[in-house]
Amino acid sequence: MSYYFTKEVNCPFEAAITKVMEELKKEGFGILTEIDVKATLKKKLDVDFRPYRILGACNPPFAFQALQAEDKIGTMLPCNVVVQETAPGKVEVTAIDPVASMAAVDNPNLKTVAEQVRAKLKKVIDNL
Amino acid sequence: MSYYFTKEVNCPFEAAITKVMEELKKEGFGILTEIDVKATLKKKLDVDFRPYRILGACNPPFAFQALQAEDKIGTMLPCNVVVQETAPGKVEVTAIDPVASMAAVDNPNLKTVAEQVRAKLKKVIDNL
Repeated sequence: MSYYFTKEVNCPFEAAITKVMEELKKEGFGILTEIDVKATLKKKLDVDFRPYRILGACNPPFAFQALQAEDKIGTMLPCNVVVQETAPGKVEVTAIDPVASMAAVDNPNLKTVAEQVRAKLKKVIDNL
Repeated sequence: MSYYFTKEVNCPFEAAITKVMEELKKEGFGILTEIDVKATLKKKLDVDFRPYRILGACNPPFAFQALQAEDKIGTMLPCNVVVQETAPGKVEVTAIDPVASMAAVDNPNLKTVAEQVRAKLKKVIDNL
């Protein structure tokens, strides 16, 4: 079982991020967190890494449902979308599959929510 | 299989957050993200929720190892620690078990890293 949905797009890195955010917004996701992995690794370890951004996407009504179903599910929120440059002008966008990442949580009510969020994140990737 | 380590502490909410951050620091974790769930749900949905904070903890050398082992693992980073008030003066602190959350990832090299991070996060909770 794969734990993600992914697609390669041909455009500059920052343009890919803008496009991903637009598609997320159409499905009701806002960005709650943003980690610049390249900058973080440079700062903390002085290593060079490719452009790599982790966007923490949250659809508030679904997040609320998930929290009501499973009080510790914040350990797995928000749903991350990774944007990374694999070659100049080539960017890979990867969204977590929450059904896979939450498979260790034995809670049918949570699974129902995760399945709905999965469908939305898959649509985001499909529409890129 | 549980997907977290958890402990209840008796102290004010903000004091618990400070203590958690101190213990995370001792194990080499910095906080890359912080989500105030209560404020977010109030703002986005106008619902009242208990104090609930999601801290995104990152141990840079281990994060770098994980990213080298599995290029899409940013979909599951950073490791979250949830701090939530369960009653006045009672605060529950819950860290993700990365071995459980990454169980859907079929990669022995990643698992080796996740096991080391798991031990550190367990220690953080044990030391509260």
